[in-house]
Amino acid sequence: MQGKIAVEEHFAIAETVDNAARWPTGYWAGLNGKLFDLFGQRLAEMDQAGIEIAVLSLNADGIQAIPDIAKAVEIARRANDALAEAVRKRPDRFAALAALPLQDPQAAAAELRRCVRDLKFNGALANGFSQIGTADAAVYYDLPQYRPFWAEVERLGVPFYLHPRYPLPSRRPAYEGHPWLVASAWGFAEETAIHALRLMGSGLFDEFAKLQIVIGHLGERIPYDLWRLDHRLALVPNRPARKTMRDYLRQNFHVTTSGHFSTPSLIHAILELGADRVMFAVDYPFEDHAAAASWFDAAEIAERDRIKIGRINAQALFGLR
Amino acid sequence: MQGKIAVEEHFAIAETVDNAARWPTGYWAGLNGKLFDLFGQRLAEMDQAGIEIAVLSLNADGIQAIPDIAKAVEIARRANDALAEAVRKRPDRFAALAALPLQDPQAAAAELRRCVRDLKFNGALANGFSQIGTADAAVYYDLPQYRPFWAEVERLGVPFYLHPRYPLPSRRPAYEGHPWLVASAWGFAEETAIHALRLMGSGLFDEFAKLQIVIGHLGERIPYDLWRLDHRLALVPNRPARKTMRDYLRQNFHVTTSGHFSTPSLIHAILELGADRVMFAVDYPFEDHAAAASWFDAAEIAERDRIKIGRINAQALFGLR
Amino acid sequence: MQGKIAVEEHFAIAETVDNAARWPTGYWAGLNGKLFDLFGQRLAEMDQAGIEIAVLSLNADGIQAIPDIAKAVEIARRANDALAEAVRKRPDRFAALAALPLQDPQAAAAELRRCVRDLKFNGALANGFSQIGTADAAVYYDLPQYRPFWAEVERLGVPFYLHPRYPLPSRRPAYEGHPWLVASAWGFAEETAIHALRLMGSGLFDEFAKLQIVIGHLGERIPYDLWRLDHRLALVPNRPARKTMRDYLRQNFHVTTSGHFSTPSLIHAILELGADRVMFAVDYPFEDHAAAASWFDAAEIAERDRIKIGRINAQALFGLR
Amino acid sequence: MQGKIAVEEHFAIAETVDNAARWPTGYWAGLNGKLFDLFGQRLAEMDQAGIEIAVLSLNADGIQAIPDIAKAVEIARRANDALAEAVRKRPDRFAALAALPLQDPQAAAAELRRCVRDLKFNGALANGFSQIGTADAAVYYDLPQYRPFWAEVERLGVPFYLHPRYPLPSRRPAYEGHPWLVASAWGFAEETAIHALRLMGSGLFDEFAKLQIVIGHLGERIPYDLWRLDHRLALVPNRPARKTMRDYLRQNFHVTTSGHFSTPSLIHAILELGADRVMFAVDYPFEDHAAAASWFDAAEIAERDRIKIGRINAQALFGLR
Repeated sequence: MQGKIAVEEHFAIAETVDNAARWPTGYWAGLNGKLFDLFGQRLAEMDQAGIEIAVLSLNADGIQAIPDIAKAVEIARRANDALAEAVRKRPDRFAALAALPLQDPQAAAAELRRCVRDLKFNGALANGFSQIGTADAAVYYDLPQYRPFWAEVERLGVPFYLHPRYPLPSRRPAYEGHPWLVASAWGFAEETAIHALRLMGSGLFDEFAKLQIVIGHLGERIPYDLWRLDHRLALVPNRPARKTMRDYLRQNFHVTTSGHFSTPSLIHAILELGADRVMFAVDYPFEDHAAAASWFDAAEIAERDRIKIGRINAQALFGLR
Repeated sequence: MQGKIAVEEHFAIAETVDNAARWPTGYWAGLNGKLFDLFGQRLAEMDQAGIEIAVLSLNADGIQAIPDIAKAVEIARRANDALAEAVRKRPDRFAALAALPLQDPQAAAAELRRCVRDLKFNGALANGFSQIGTADAAVYYDLPQYRPFWAEVERLGVPFYLHPRYPLPSRRPAYEGHPWLVASAWGFAEETAIHALRLMGSGLFDEFAKLQIVIGHLGERIPYDLWRLDHRLALVPNRPARKTMRDYLRQNFHVTTSGHFSTPSLIHAILELGADRVMFAVDYPFEDHAAAASWFDAAEIAERDRIKIGRINAQALFGLR
Repeated sequence: MQGKIAVEEHFAIAETVDNAARWPTGYWAGLNGKLFDLFGQRLAEMDQAGIEIAVLSLNADGIQAIPDIAKAVEIARRANDALAEAVRKRPDRFAALAALPLQDPQAAAAELRRCVRDLKFNGALANGFSQIGTADAAVYYDLPQYRPFWAEVERLGVPFYLHPRYPLPSRRPAYEGHPWLVASAWGFAEETAIHALRLMGSGLFDEFAKLQIVIGHLGERIPYDLWRLDHRLALVPNRPARKTMRDYLRQNFHVTTSGHFSTPSLIHAILELGADRVMFAVDYPFEDHAAAASWFDAAEIAERDRIKIGRINAQALFGLR
Repeated sequence: MQGKIAVEEHFAIAETVDNAARWPTGYWAGLNGKLFDLFGQRLAEMDQAGIEIAVLSLNADGIQAIPDIAKAVEIARRANDALAEAVRKRPDRFAALAALPLQDPQAAAAELRRCVRDLKFNGALANGFSQIGTADAAVYYDLPQYRPFWAEVERLGVPFYLHPRYPLPSRRPAYEGHPWLVASAWGFAEETAIHALRLMGSGLFDEFAKLQIVIGHLGERIPYDLWRLDHRLALVPNRPARKTMRDYLRQNFHVTTSGHFSTPSLIHAILELGADRVMFAVDYPFEDHAAAASWFDAAEIAERDRIKIGRINAQALFGLR
């Protein structure tokens, strides 16, 4: 399929790539170059893969991993300015999601407003919880202090991508001795699923019913357990949320194929959410443009749904022409 | 379908029901009576639901939550004797999975041997990790000290059901403010999935290739991410395990429908594992016999697979006539 | 689901129920009454089943089985007037598909124009091929003489429902000794599938690319063989049609659930066509309102797709408010 | 997957290739050579595609299209002797299905007995109905005179492959003007489905409950309409068959992938029949070894089911070592 839009594609600025030590040397070395390249190999590979537009966002853990609030605000601003500059050069190939200093909800709201109003960004992407003050503080956005921020997101009418991040070392005891399960193979999705479920469970979407959240990996495993989730929660009296998780998922969430190129899971996501709430994403440079595209282009789903998932849904949600 | 075998059905003895405080009063109150009843309402409901045989096991967290090793050994023995007595009374309706004091791998192996050889049990069921010595110690069975235990499980040729349990309070920070996500709605599956993945990732099944592990909830969400799991692990050099997670899942694991009565997820499990490795389970009394059976009997899968999942697979795995 | 729209619902006038002898007496006896009732039991059952609107059409074989052209024209007009009257009484509950004397393409075009412009009908429904002149003449609408008719359908911008009918006695030798296979159990779908494939294969949709055809029974088995159909046709040189059958199916066809309440087939149709081209239908009174609705309301598909299939798609296609 | 068994693979003898005129010249020209080649390109392609064993059968319409009974008997014998010779040369790569002169049920039974007992064949394959006496006579095997033949098939305990054939010219009026729909794109499956349904509907499998019939194309579209088939037949009083079509399909039928390399249809077949009754087939030389194998090897189904469908089921059904 030509004309695809990929919605979880990453770049970096110098300040956000100091986490290289976490990765096997060879792997990260290659990634570093790809994160900084925007107009060279990246565009060539996008051409090759039939990807017209990459919706760009700052690499993880990005701003969320900067406990110093002032620094988080400053680097987010710098990253967004760099991204705006890139989109200005190739508005036909790139769109932008704002990095947000969610360590300070007011500052995050202000930065999002600036990005959307002044820089014409298409939404925001946060790398999970934020560390605030100390490296071991993990703050999730279902907490009451974030309600004014969400009010602003709803007002601006842009989607919010909840991207995975590393669970903090103190929060992953169950993975002891299996460091790789912590990361992209399993832990990322778990961390992000819990954050998404907290948002749903907090009643956030009862207060701001128009919020649109995007999650990757075909829904961070939530679709597989969606029935059970509501089945068990139905036993719990006095929960803050008024609707079922299924309701929130289908009214306030979108899922993407980022890093999860499996047709049975794609079909399962379609059966739980409908094709209108699924979008194509690669997760470049952590995943391969060609692998993602060749899988997606041949996945045995309705051609009409391929076009929706590959392009139309993203156009509508991110306000692309 | 008549003649179903349900493979994750629970009973209790007086020593294992002190965790009532965790549950909303009304809910647990009802459960308590059902856990102790074996021959009354339980059998009547099984009759009604077309369930011929319940494979019984001790309620969670059971033995695993007893940090005192000697006490764990003693209560496991008592529970198993009680269970043996129940099966003796109705061998046509019940089969038995041993409770094991895994706080002491040698004692657990000895108790399993006793249960299989002397009491004619059909396998074992452990409620996740064991607390050893102190309430906050969580020990998983991929650790090296458990290899002799697994050798004994393989030698005895019986399946091992890895049942969920509550994550310890210190190990669930991400759920703060959302206590119900910790439990059956989400956290149980996560806890159990990580344990299962640790077993796979440790190389255990390379050493004991005939081990057969059973997990509930249609696979604790692993089928949904199976492709991605191996896709990401392929990037990791020098892992202890020699095969892919998919290989272990299809050679060493079985999944059950316990508490997850969703046809799309059942189909997804069949597409990843094959119908030969899926079994019917209710999770009584935490789930309802009638609800489980009426869903399963009408689920739109091949009739032949219904019979396998509903009966034949369990007969073969648990050595039932 | 409340507010469903059912799009293949039948009524009769006196002139179109003389085929009673074909059916087991008891079955048809009941049907006759139901075909004539519009405002009594029908509406009560629709209320019960959550069906807000029935898109009505004349019973099969209807006009198509009247070899006398003038009589066909006359009875079609009478049936359409009767239908218009019914809709006028309950515009909140009924919409109308025109019966067409396709024995005469010009007359059919004129009658459709009258129905759409004057009577505000929402489309047309033909019961398969037309007998013209003699009882044994079967004329299909891919023939060249129908191109002006199709031009008018496209101009009027209304959908055309291609409904099954009995194959003629001379055209069903393979069913000898198995009369019931001829009918609704198998032969109806076969007859209609071939007609639909003839339309596609004739290049009709290359000439009139905006035509929208509706077929029942979740696509008359075409989705199951869609891949194979194009795979084999690719070997055939010089066919009149320029695109693949898959292309025509997804650009010019819609399928309905009429008389086929099977979730695996519904999912298969969604995977081949996308949920945007599937619509709910009962086929009353030949099928049961309650059976259709209780199946559809509980079918394990995305809630968003249920609403589309149950209502929104029909609103858009038939121009309902 | 290595070690596949392909169960609908064709060869020809001089007497059975006179139907060349039916095919576009170039297409058939290539096929002719491939039908006669057994040990050259065929084996090389099988090696390449991971196909260890081809279960061979005579090309369609073969014996069934020889109205002269004595000639049919004679040519069947000659074809079977030729096939036996081929298998004798490479018993590690070929197995054999007998061609049968079903024009004469007694002769067909005798020839099958000879093939199974003396030549160690693995079953039989008939190309649909037989023409007897005149070219326009089409005789189906549900007729009473075939009951002794079926008794012999059951006694011998071998499967019977019901392969498609061209509907007779007099029996395909609905396809007028669309000759290619008659053939492999649509008409073959229809012809074969009706024959299979006639067998089921005649009560044959009530009399001979152990008969095992194989049909290709993932079930000749029957799985898509299986629910509807029984749903409608339930209205018909006094049918000869005692069970549902679903019962017969799952107890007396197997389906193969011959010429239908579509994963959604494969999954649908698995959901209706179970993976135990699906087998891999290519339909060489009418289909391509490489295309069939590369699709099947990558189809997103359970690996365990792939091995069953690709090999184990065929070993069991055809008695291969």
